[in-house]
Amino acid sequence: MRLISYATESGSRVAGRRGDYFVDLNLADPGLPTTMKGLLELGATGLDRAQAAIHAGQPLDPHSIRLLAPVPSPEKVICVGLNYADHAAESGLQIPTEPVIFNKFPTAVSGHQAPIVLPKCSNQVDYEAELVVVIGRKGRDIPESQAMEYIAGYACGHDVSARDWQLAKPGGQWLLGKTFDTFAPFGPHLVTADEVEDPGCLQIRLRLNGQVLQDSNTRQLIFSIPHLVHYISQVCTLKPGDIIFTGTPPGVGVARKPQIFMKPGDVAEVEIEKIGVLANPVIEG
Amino acid sequence: MRLISYATESGSRVAGRRGDYFVDLNLADPGLPTTMKGLLELGATGLDRAQAAIHAGQPLDPHSIRLLAPVPSPEKVICVGLNYADHAAESGLQIPTEPVIFNKFPTAVSGHQAPIVLPKCSNQVDYEAELVVVIGRKGRDIPESQAMEYIAGYACGHDVSARDWQLAKPGGQWLLGKTFDTFAPFGPHLVTADEVEDPGCLQIRLRLNGQVLQDSNTRQLIFSIPHLVHYISQVCTLKPGDIIFTGTPPGVGVARKPQIFMKPGDVAEVEIEKIGVLANPVIEG
Repeated sequence: MRLISYATESGSRVAGRRGDYFVDLNLADPGLPTTMKGLLELGATGLDRAQAAIHAGQPLDPHSIRLLAPVPSPEKVICVGLNYADHAAESGLQIPTEPVIFNKFPTAVSGHQAPIVLPKCSNQVDYEAELVVVIGRKGRDIPESQAMEYIAGYACGHDVSARDWQLAKPGGQWLLGKTFDTFAPFGPHLVTADEVEDPGCLQIRLRLNGQVLQDSNTRQLIFSIPHLVHYISQVCTLKPGDIIFTGTPPGVGVARKPQIFMKPGDVAEVEIEKIGVLANPVIEG
Repeated sequence: MRLISYATESGSRVAGRRGDYFVDLNLADPGLPTTMKGLLELGATGLDRAQAAIHAGQPLDPHSIRLLAPVPSPEKVICVGLNYADHAAESGLQIPTEPVIFNKFPTAVSGHQAPIVLPKCSNQVDYEAELVVVIGRKGRDIPESQAMEYIAGYACGHDVSARDWQLAKPGGQWLLGKTFDTFAPFGPHLVTADEVEDPGCLQIRLRLNGQVLQDSNTRQLIFSIPHLVHYISQVCTLKPGDIIFTGTPPGVGVARKPQIFMKPGDVAEVEIEKIGVLANPVIEG
């Protein structure tokens, strides 16, 4: 299934794709929740019922759909740093012996086609294509062997990064450089886990104005998705709707000679095999 | 006003203190929201109406009250590192030239008397007394001169820190060591801003089993509260219910000789002048 969240005057609603159309789940089956988080909280039962609703419901007028991020306001936006060996090397950093975990605030989240707003106080806004994992089940201390059962699905993610704020501030904490408003686009939809046989074997690319600047495969991940879920859940309870940006492959702008940073008028696209294409225009703040 | 959130079977509710009792705001005035976040979103109007409700309403049975954190699930738990000069010195770090910002996840938040759960995977869980600021109004790029208008009130906070996870992991990111479940107790209540003439001049103390281990004054803050609000709002939109832990004074356990870490059976108390006392027992995970 491909599930989306879309904007209405009374808040976000969840819909599923059937052919070229979307079906609002709660309109098709009033027993289903109106939001993605509500749906994910129902677990497998909710997804089965969603499938039936998508099959039976009335399609929405495509012109009425404004996509939001699949989970418009995740409680946690967890990010993994340096999780591709070549990217660690190009950053001049050692391959980490344990996952490097940081995060963004929910205020950074946006969806497909939403603008990435360049803040006035940075002139080093870089791109990072990433596979996003969406958590579907509450858990703490999740064994690696059971981690896949906690994943609802996947999306394309863009870990937009103001390098000056990430790397050149006292204290060495990456948070601020990663969490400017609009710096966590993900989408366009959530592809449910049953449609992705092996998330550890997907081509991933970033294009800036059509030019391919990152081109790799999730096979290159240093720490696998089940290991990340296990590792993070040693520390905090994961909940339905939490998302994990799993790290970016080599080719980021700050590591190039000459460096490339995003500028107003650019269009950034993250394409992941079997998942889709997330496109975002870049505008001045 | 002293406002609390308390637990009921149908979720958290907001109440205000009158003498030795609490009055549920929405029961006293059904036009008021049931949650703290809902109340804060109403701004000054909401607080005025809350005051009237507290005056007029029926007191709750004190035995029925189980306190939660004043905002049980803040969207953002923002933290400031090294914000007391002496604490930066005892940590062997330079006095920062800009605020050092990190954060905790909402899953770390708990209230007065809730246990701090020591994780099995750490043996260096340290204490940090902090003044917590609660945001009352949405804003981005807030000028320092207007920052105080965005503050709803204050609480005592305990920035519990697993030093091994904070400081000894690859990548140098503090997040995980700071965000174990139960590592962000704050409360016991929110004291509204009108009751605190100068938050930059409050005695702050941490006691472990009655022994004073931190004893300072918010006068020692390197970056003032208005500056912190301004600085953070350059990056992300602040929203009602967001909280800021403003940094800890000297005396933390990791910097002592011999070092002191918390152990099962301990009781940690944060006392701040004009705000109150936040007490939390420490238990094994």
